Amino acid sequence: MKSSILTIGISICALNSYAQDSLQMRKISDEIMLHGTCYENLRVLTKTIGHRISGSPEAARAVTWGEKAMKEAGADKVWLQAADVPYWYRGKESLYLKMGKEYKKVRALSLGNSEGTYGKTLEAPIIMVHNFDEFKALPESEVKGKIVFFDYRFRQDFVFTFEGYGDAVRYRWASPSIAAQKGAVGVIIRSMSTGKDDFPHTGGMHYTDSIKKIPEMSLGNITADELERACEKGAPMAKMTSECHMMPQPVHSFNVIGEIKGTETPERIITVGGHLDSWDVGEGATDDGAGCVQSIEIIRAFKALGLKPKCTIRAVLFMNEENGDRGGEAYADSAKAKNEHHVLAIESDAGGFSPRGIGLEMPDSLKQQITKYKNLFLQYGVYDFSREEGGTDIGPLKKQMNVPLAGLLPDSQRYFDLHHTDNDTFEQVNHRELKLGAVVMAQLIYLVSEHGLN
Amino acid sequence: MKSSILTIGISICALNSYAQDSLQMRKISDEIMLHGTCYENLRVLTKTIGHRISGSPEAARAVTWGEKAMKEAGADKVWLQAADVPYWYRGKESLYLKMGKEYKKVRALSLGNSEGTYGKTLEAPIIMVHNFDEFKALPESEVKGKIVFFDYRFRQDFVFTFEGYGDAVRYRWASPSIAAQKGAVGVIIRSMSTGKDDFPHTGGMHYTDSIKKIPEMSLGNITADELERACEKGAPMAKMTSECHMMPQPVHSFNVIGEIKGTETPERIITVGGHLDSWDVGEGATDDGAGCVQSIEIIRAFKALGLKPKCTIRAVLFMNEENGDRGGEAYADSAKAKNEHHVLAIESDAGGFSPRGIGLEMPDSLKQQITKYKNLFLQYGVYDFSREEGGTDIGPLKKQMNVPLAGLLPDSQRYFDLHHTDNDTFEQVNHRELKLGAVVMAQLIYLVSEHGLN
Repeated sequence: MKSSILTIGISICALNSYAQDSLQMRKISDEIMLHGTCYENLRVLTKTIGHRISGSPEAARAVTWGEKAMKEAGADKVWLQAADVPYWYRGKESLYLKMGKEYKKVRALSLGNSEGTYGKTLEAPIIMVHNFDEFKALPESEVKGKIVFFDYRFRQDFVFTFEGYGDAVRYRWASPSIAAQKGAVGVIIRSMSTGKDDFPHTGGMHYTDSIKKIPEMSLGNITADELERACEKGAPMAKMTSECHMMPQPVHSFNVIGEIKGTETPERIITVGGHLDSWDVGEGATDDGAGCVQSIEIIRAFKALGLKPKCTIRAVLFMNEENGDRGGEAYADSAKAKNEHHVLAIESDAGGFSPRGIGLEMPDSLKQQITKYKNLFLQYGVYDFSREEGGTDIGPLKKQMNVPLAGLLPDSQRYFDLHHTDNDTFEQVNHRELKLGAVVMAQLIYLVSEHGLN
Repeated sequence: MKSSILTIGISICALNSYAQDSLQMRKISDEIMLHGTCYENLRVLTKTIGHRISGSPEAARAVTWGEKAMKEAGADKVWLQAADVPYWYRGKESLYLKMGKEYKKVRALSLGNSEGTYGKTLEAPIIMVHNFDEFKALPESEVKGKIVFFDYRFRQDFVFTFEGYGDAVRYRWASPSIAAQKGAVGVIIRSMSTGKDDFPHTGGMHYTDSIKKIPEMSLGNITADELERACEKGAPMAKMTSECHMMPQPVHSFNVIGEIKGTETPERIITVGGHLDSWDVGEGATDDGAGCVQSIEIIRAFKALGLKPKCTIRAVLFMNEENGDRGGEAYADSAKAKNEHHVLAIESDAGGFSPRGIGLEMPDSLKQQITKYKNLFLQYGVYDFSREEGGTDIGPLKKQMNVPLAGLLPDSQRYFDLHHTDNDTFEQVNHRELKLGAVVMAQLIYLVSEHGLN
């Protein structure tokens, strides 16, 4: 009998807790949907600063902006955390293609971290391959002295577009060093793009040590289609000019951190963040202004609602996600040095679109503690907890200290239309979708702070 | 022993069927995501015809376009189905507000079906109320001779925005007849809008018989905010001019129908549709060009894949959803007169956004037959089968013949930023999101055609 009474008692407590959680989650949603300032914050960041590559004067201004925004959100404490970052500089660049009788200028972007043509103009015939297998089959004599066009298409059949990106991104990352081994003098790639437009996409690339550093440029899908047809018919030529290069010295920069002190277990920390740096095109709104303003919004909402979290909540605007992750490493280094207890770290770096899921990168026992809230999230459109996704900036926390990671998973359909392009602007972000992402992260933080994760 | 073997046999069959369904659903998805023409069809409809209110020359051109597109998609049979429709004509209109010292012209739209000022200029003081309760409390003397500003805000706290619309739309629909009963001479409303912009939204309104027909105009949120502040401070004035009116005679128009004949039970029909008419602003891309091109896409995809559906599949571009539903009624009238057997009707009229659910308006026993496929839809982002939602155009099929209805439920966050505005353009539709909606409807049709629903 006793055990039955105990069971009933536990069940009633569980029901009460469920109702209580549901109510608090609703309050968080109403507060952010009705009074959220993240959309206005994003407008200020994108329209008064714009893009902000690591090491640039714009990135420095973004740090100042972030500090101010974090204070205005009501954080108990705001500070900057030092991180030295690489500074890749684009400078002037141009690409001319001769696909018929005459050269014409096309839209193109040098890939991030790549070396340019050192002020000279590189003119060479183009040879097209569709993938690495085709390239491997080519004799050196056919590659030598040429610009290789890696015409690999983003696979639009993947419904979750990050799978298409994962599949295609090796062509951006590795092509120059692979091509240089057979004597190629430059690389052109079809952008990692789902877009039905001509925006070229930049993004990080990498040279293998000891292999000659040749320049790499990307084309939007429309120009890539045109070049594909030209290669099928004849032997087009390219004239490539680019000043881009990695600056010799790293630049002193910062993560921006805002904190609400926990009331019961302040030594237990929940981190939420996005990255403050962007590529040097567009306005860095979707990637990742959205994640920054959502993280600040969580601080604001907790304060506005008078919620007193048991755990300490830290919103972090990480520096240098795009080409180094130095901010993420600095944060984890500091956490480890201070022997901090991090309960959970969440990142929003997949755009300010309607949330659909929360990726979980943690042991199964912890996953189960989060997925038991699944039904509570359904009315906010979040149903998918099946993916193993955290985030680049919080990655070092897991690597160094085994911190459980979560990643906000918004709808992925539009992300790779915009990613690393001039079209990644404030106008592409919807105010309700952006806010809803902040709602879901704030709700998860509330639940973990209230009920723990261990 | 025998029964165990039977159970195992049934289980294996069920597993085989599940695997078979999963594979066919993937083929449908790949076909549409890789080769779908719905986005290009939408471009042609919106950019060469544009908006197309019932009865207008543009609506007639859209019928011709639809017939051609349906044939190009490969339908076995394409025909037009007659429907006489009302023709509401906007003409010239303007609204000037005196919120300070001088009149200034503001963006405004007459509401659909409303009468204008018959060529004259209506000048009157404005009185503001926030809702019907406040209006009821006003004495007649305070309303008489004035223009009433119904300043009711779209509730942004609803996560599913159609709930906010359902809550707010009565102010558009009913305000003029309510205000006229106390002697008001005109009505201004805050648009049914989630937008953080100044686009006024049009949409259907209704006069109660025997009550004087006074004009009604809508404001975008920014101008409505300005007028709200002006009303709080003083007594603003308005000058309203509008030629709009309902044409005396209905216009002869059509639904466009394309069909694939069923191979095993051709007498069983599955209808899928959207509406071809739009309001007379923007390009009618989201409302509801999207639903039309998705319906045509389903015909194309079945044909391209060589799928031979057991049931007959009909794609219908309905005429006159916006202000009369005459197309929907004509379709149901014909079905009833011919004693057709309609297994299911599906509508897409909530925008070309990423699909998230399928609304089911049918008895529980049928709902269960559809929700058993739930896990198959998860990888396409569809998880919500809980809403009782069909569609306006297919409504008469249920009313007259008890046909089970389904409604595609895309993500709702952006819909009421665009709905019935000049901003409802092709550019607001994403190609992948649009296609994914067609994928999910085609998959549902495949499953119901293959396994029945009864």
